[in-house]
Amino acid sequence: MRAAVMRQRALVVADVPAPEPGPGEVLVRTLACGICGSDLHALQHAEAFVETSRRAGNPFVMDLARDVVMGHEFCAELVEHGPGTTRALKAGTRVCSRPTLLRPTGPQSIGYSNDNPGGYGEYLRLTEAFLLPVPEGVATEQAALTEPMAVGVHAVARARLEPDDAPLVIGCGPVGLAVIAALHLRDVRPIVAADFSRRRRELAVAVGADVVVDPAETTPWQSWREAAVYRDPRRAPALPPWIVGPAVRPAVVFECVGVPGVLDQLMAAAPRGARIVVVGVCMEADTIHPMLGIGKELNLQFVLGYTPQEFAATLGHIAAGAIPTAPLITGHVGLDGVAQAFADLASPERHAKILVHPGR
Amino acid sequence: MRAAVMRQRALVVADVPAPEPGPGEVLVRTLACGICGSDLHALQHAEAFVETSRRAGNPFVMDLARDVVMGHEFCAELVEHGPGTTRALKAGTRVCSRPTLLRPTGPQSIGYSNDNPGGYGEYLRLTEAFLLPVPEGVATEQAALTEPMAVGVHAVARARLEPDDAPLVIGCGPVGLAVIAALHLRDVRPIVAADFSRRRRELAVAVGADVVVDPAETTPWQSWREAAVYRDPRRAPALPPWIVGPAVRPAVVFECVGVPGVLDQLMAAAPRGARIVVVGVCMEADTIHPMLGIGKELNLQFVLGYTPQEFAATLGHIAAGAIPTAPLITGHVGLDGVAQAFADLASPERHAKILVHPGR
Repeated sequence: MRAAVMRQRALVVADVPAPEPGPGEVLVRTLACGICGSDLHALQHAEAFVETSRRAGNPFVMDLARDVVMGHEFCAELVEHGPGTTRALKAGTRVCSRPTLLRPTGPQSIGYSNDNPGGYGEYLRLTEAFLLPVPEGVATEQAALTEPMAVGVHAVARARLEPDDAPLVIGCGPVGLAVIAALHLRDVRPIVAADFSRRRRELAVAVGADVVVDPAETTPWQSWREAAVYRDPRRAPALPPWIVGPAVRPAVVFECVGVPGVLDQLMAAAPRGARIVVVGVCMEADTIHPMLGIGKELNLQFVLGYTPQEFAATLGHIAAGAIPTAPLITGHVGLDGVAQAFADLASPERHAKILVHPGR
Repeated sequence: MRAAVMRQRALVVADVPAPEPGPGEVLVRTLACGICGSDLHALQHAEAFVETSRRAGNPFVMDLARDVVMGHEFCAELVEHGPGTTRALKAGTRVCSRPTLLRPTGPQSIGYSNDNPGGYGEYLRLTEAFLLPVPEGVATEQAALTEPMAVGVHAVARARLEPDDAPLVIGCGPVGLAVIAALHLRDVRPIVAADFSRRRRELAVAVGADVVVDPAETTPWQSWREAAVYRDPRRAPALPPWIVGPAVRPAVVFECVGVPGVLDQLMAAAPRGARIVVVGVCMEADTIHPMLGIGKELNLQFVLGYTPQEFAATLGHIAAGAIPTAPLITGHVGLDGVAQAFADLASPERHAKILVHPGR
């Protein structure tokens, strides 16, 4: 099959073996697959990615000397059932799935694997038990956004928000936009979001942000503080007399940038007792000053992925129109355009999510 | 008054002005004051200490060009009431207090301040409202350990332990020992504790550790895993078939070392979903790999100090014999011995807590 392959630290279009479905697996044809920021990181910081995976004790780690077909945000069409399948869904059904193969020896990644090609190839093999049929009337492009939007749903769930918590989203790339959409879905308000890019701030508003900030002009914390004042003074805690200004709600910050230095900046600027949910994937080493966390008793919750229930629920929310996807899709390419799309995604003014259509 | 003074990055014994109690304050004579690891850090990394305090937005930051009398773990004797006091306690009463002065403009630190001398001097001024009388029969030396032991009580409270959580304490200096004593007080078991020093492991057992580990011989996590197996299989969650070995309880790690690199090591070795409570105060920059936290959805809770209620309860627990203090006290010095005591505390084989007796 044709695929955009990570080979010797570059993306090339090549013919590679099509995957063969094993027991309990199906073969599907990729209809659309989003390009994830993690794929950009994985290409750019391939050695760090592999080294940290190994250090964390992951049983399956990519061999960079061999081909990898990335792509884990896909919508596909069922082509063929492998042995030992229930055939509950017919060939031709459009499906989504978590990018995971369930094997007797444990789960395996699809898309960060030498053996399990991802959605930047014409075909994928998926575990039948994980298939979710895409409802009628939901566009393939929308369904392909299930995976990235589920990341936001999960991050907000793991934040364990209390009724008074006031959110601040740092970074309005696809991850930040998914978090904003998930906060909006839960009616958590006001949602304050910060990004240097005007285009991304517009997208943030389109998916539900109430206040957007350009950090080049105002510190996000100042805008947050104004937005997070208790409107109902009966809910506000009593403040000691030396505290100037109104009572402000507890801060929950979603770090959606994933670049070294951002975490330490947030720790320095965060109010006492703030919770920082780390959603942006920083694949490099990062420097923090623990004293900043200690002095303010900060909490850092690192999050990843989603539960099977959250993944399925996200597709349902997209189908119901409760999670918007249209504003995020800013480009479409065939396999020949993947390398250029990776380069284009570095510019936040132009793109949020580019979809790859291997069949085009 | 005579005091051991931090002056030009060194400790010297000198005559300094005795503090004068302001409105609502009392003058007390220092009976005993423990040397805290933070004081060693503050002397050794004075610039970093001041710079991080400033960056965190603390309103009062030490001026290193001026004298500082440190010492915040004290037991003292009431000498004189200032203006506007209730005089509820008589002169001669032994008292403990949080190392904080309550002023109309806000709380001020005692011991990390140019203006509010700590317990390495003959006299202190304290806020009358914060005074706790030391019960009859409680030795002055025991009462002086209220502050450091309250740190352990607070860290364990902030860990929000669930019934199945299994603790691991990394580092058995005074902070680690306080955490172990507080876990023991709550009957959280088994308590696994790790330290390279044999003497400190003995102290850990003396204050309540069930299993102690020398990281030079075994990884603490291996011992923890053996100790944290569910004894009652009905409580254990169902494991997928590819997980080898018995179900293990959720991990709550108390980081009580406070040295760069330890946090990243813990993040690399911790099991999925572990919570790391950062109690050790690392005053330098530290490097972490966020990917380690993300991949395992770790939670980092930074903690500091204690609430007024926890401080008072700790004195009560010490008085009741529920928090042991005797094993921790390994030395006594007068003011002339403070500088040498700071040097001696670098050697974990000899000392845990050295008490300063300014009157001796």
